[in-house]
Amino acid sequence: MALYVQKFGGTSVGSVERIKAVAEKVKGFRDAGHQVVVVVSAMSGETNRLIGLANDINDEPTPRELDMLVSTGEQVTISLLTMALHKLGVPATSYTGSQVGIMTDSAHTKARIQRIETEDMRQDLDDGQVAVVAGFQGVDEEGNITTLGRGGSDTTGVALAAALNADECQIYTDVDGVYTTDPRVCSQAQRLDTITVEEMLELASLGSKVLQIRAVEFAGKYNVPLRVLSSFQDGPGTLIVADSDKDEDSMEEPLISGIAFTANEAKLTLLNTPDVPGVASKILGPIADANIEIDMIVQNVAPAGDYTDFTFTVAKGDYKLTLKILEEQVLPALGEGEVKGDDKIAKVSLVGVGMRSHAGVASKMFRVLSEENINIRMVSTSEIKISVVVDEKQMELAVRALHQAFGLDKNDIESE
Amino acid sequence: MALYVQKFGGTSVGSVERIKAVAEKVKGFRDAGHQVVVVVSAMSGETNRLIGLANDINDEPTPRELDMLVSTGEQVTISLLTMALHKLGVPATSYTGSQVGIMTDSAHTKARIQRIETEDMRQDLDDGQVAVVAGFQGVDEEGNITTLGRGGSDTTGVALAAALNADECQIYTDVDGVYTTDPRVCSQAQRLDTITVEEMLELASLGSKVLQIRAVEFAGKYNVPLRVLSSFQDGPGTLIVADSDKDEDSMEEPLISGIAFTANEAKLTLLNTPDVPGVASKILGPIADANIEIDMIVQNVAPAGDYTDFTFTVAKGDYKLTLKILEEQVLPALGEGEVKGDDKIAKVSLVGVGMRSHAGVASKMFRVLSEENINIRMVSTSEIKISVVVDEKQMELAVRALHQAFGLDKNDIESE
Repeated sequence: MALYVQKFGGTSVGSVERIKAVAEKVKGFRDAGHQVVVVVSAMSGETNRLIGLANDINDEPTPRELDMLVSTGEQVTISLLTMALHKLGVPATSYTGSQVGIMTDSAHTKARIQRIETEDMRQDLDDGQVAVVAGFQGVDEEGNITTLGRGGSDTTGVALAAALNADECQIYTDVDGVYTTDPRVCSQAQRLDTITVEEMLELASLGSKVLQIRAVEFAGKYNVPLRVLSSFQDGPGTLIVADSDKDEDSMEEPLISGIAFTANEAKLTLLNTPDVPGVASKILGPIADANIEIDMIVQNVAPAGDYTDFTFTVAKGDYKLTLKILEEQVLPALGEGEVKGDDKIAKVSLVGVGMRSHAGVASKMFRVLSEENINIRMVSTSEIKISVVVDEKQMELAVRALHQAFGLDKNDIESE
Repeated sequence: MALYVQKFGGTSVGSVERIKAVAEKVKGFRDAGHQVVVVVSAMSGETNRLIGLANDINDEPTPRELDMLVSTGEQVTISLLTMALHKLGVPATSYTGSQVGIMTDSAHTKARIQRIETEDMRQDLDDGQVAVVAGFQGVDEEGNITTLGRGGSDTTGVALAAALNADECQIYTDVDGVYTTDPRVCSQAQRLDTITVEEMLELASLGSKVLQIRAVEFAGKYNVPLRVLSSFQDGPGTLIVADSDKDEDSMEEPLISGIAFTANEAKLTLLNTPDVPGVASKILGPIADANIEIDMIVQNVAPAGDYTDFTFTVAKGDYKLTLKILEEQVLPALGEGEVKGDDKIAKVSLVGVGMRSHAGVASKMFRVLSEENINIRMVSTSEIKISVVVDEKQMELAVRALHQAFGLDKNDIESE
């Protein structure tokens, strides 16, 4: 007998029929003798419908009232799924975030879980009940309803799995696992059986939107085995494991686990800025003050003299505002220099824990791109990731060329 | 400065525009220096939509899960109305039934309020906040969400007014007050300025669906001044007062305050039943066991010998089942007798505290009906009410004739 926490996202519970299908799936696990806690999101479209109503009334609703509003979405789903389980003869009880005791701080719309009171739920499980829990929501010490931010249902699932010491947290979604890259761009992309938490974090933050980053962090921190799998078809999915749990004996560990990419960034460069201590904070301070998040940062060494070039990327939606801040605030403060920008760029990243112990990944990457006549505009590296910025129109070509060159294509691995 | 509890029903908050209009109305009271607690229902149609979803999944959802589901309806409204108040610059805070501390028993879908914890709300009011409270819902001692049954938002409003010792509980609805009878049937019907709690109880239970009976009982029990008025037009509405608060000096107190009627009943008669002690319970026991509610009961005195006729009414929807129970269970148990039924009947009732001190109301009623050639099938009386059963097709004629005969028509009163 195992204890599973199973999380079903909005698409998986998006209609009455799908809710019934989820109930059948849960029943299967229970019939096999397992204990099950189910975490659900709002039915797909519901959260947007509610936010639409709010915006028709007040374009700047307070976070507390927004949480009060959108938390109803999951509450609807837990009651409907529990009714569906009852219909199948499965004893089940629904819980709001408040009822289950998911205690958070008071940062409405982006609250953080502080502790979970699992006593009642544990009792229910021992009594043979399936516990159906509203994802995405919690309650603060004053009893206000909070939400964990978009995609927070994943976090609820992992946090519950950690608190209950579950055998596995299963995240059911509309894809059947984590892929080497996006199959829509590269038809040779394939599902990974396992991936490490670190790799997953790099892939998630780089645009493979399978799992919420916080949920993966949580899973890594509390050592919760996390599996991504499809609501709609059977299959093993992808198991996300701690680095140390990966098979140490595998000599054939691939260098690269996956390729992430995004065209949603823009690049800004300050040319000929004075190369003196404190200049970086003078440049980035006003950007941060405007709540603009900065992704890559590259500062070239001054080739000669006291001047340098400083380049960074922001989300494409922040491009114009960032340009304005640089021109109107930063340049006058620096006293000299020049601003350049480009919002027709893309970022392509190789991710893999294997590259830690293998040299030459970067040089191979650059060679492959060069052979395709793809110009590299920026480079940034971490222990398990290399990211390059290229022209937006060359992004897909870069992804496919790298996917093949690093042995990720289907045929390559199948023939090994 | 007064403290008002204002309740707005589903039609009054049925759209974004109407929610904004409610916010304007609340702002008006607050700008005039009053403290305001607002109680709201789910947006019209929302509760039925949710119940429809439930029924698509499980035709017999458990009451606990049904409460979990439908209570989201009011939660959506409180957050939207609070956002609308914020937009107008009015400080406001929303509360679910659970958050406000509306403690009920555990009778899901028809829970009864046991106590209300008003401390937090009182503090908010003193801080200048408008408190926006979800009607219809509460929480039991174990933290389960409960609902008070359809129309329970009225009860929430009155209970809050009692707990806060409010100056007035105002029930905003889609009619501008309580009428002498239904204006759709009698064009001469007119709004009453005041009505007693007792009269209102008789009118409500007889089919004037302006207010929920329990709310009126509550108002009577805790001496809460209760006013029914329109969300959509200005006007004084109708004030529902304790009997003792009515103007004692008024010599011109009308005999009759209003005329209620319903075509939603059916009549059943057991002919020639043995007239022995215990026969009534033998007849009605199996009916009650089937959870069928009985309204009027008339037992004729046995004219001679040991036999009698026993007649009662039930809701039209229960007619066939009741007939079946009488034929298959009651008759065999009695050993003799005969069953007759009629579901083409209507009940018309005169209501008025004035009739307590005036003789002759019944005989005048019978005379008026006789003059219209309306046959009376059953009669039942209480201190402030006389009800007759007539043929369904004569119901409207009976209402109009009685309305005029008892001086309730517009012109009569205007000319007085």
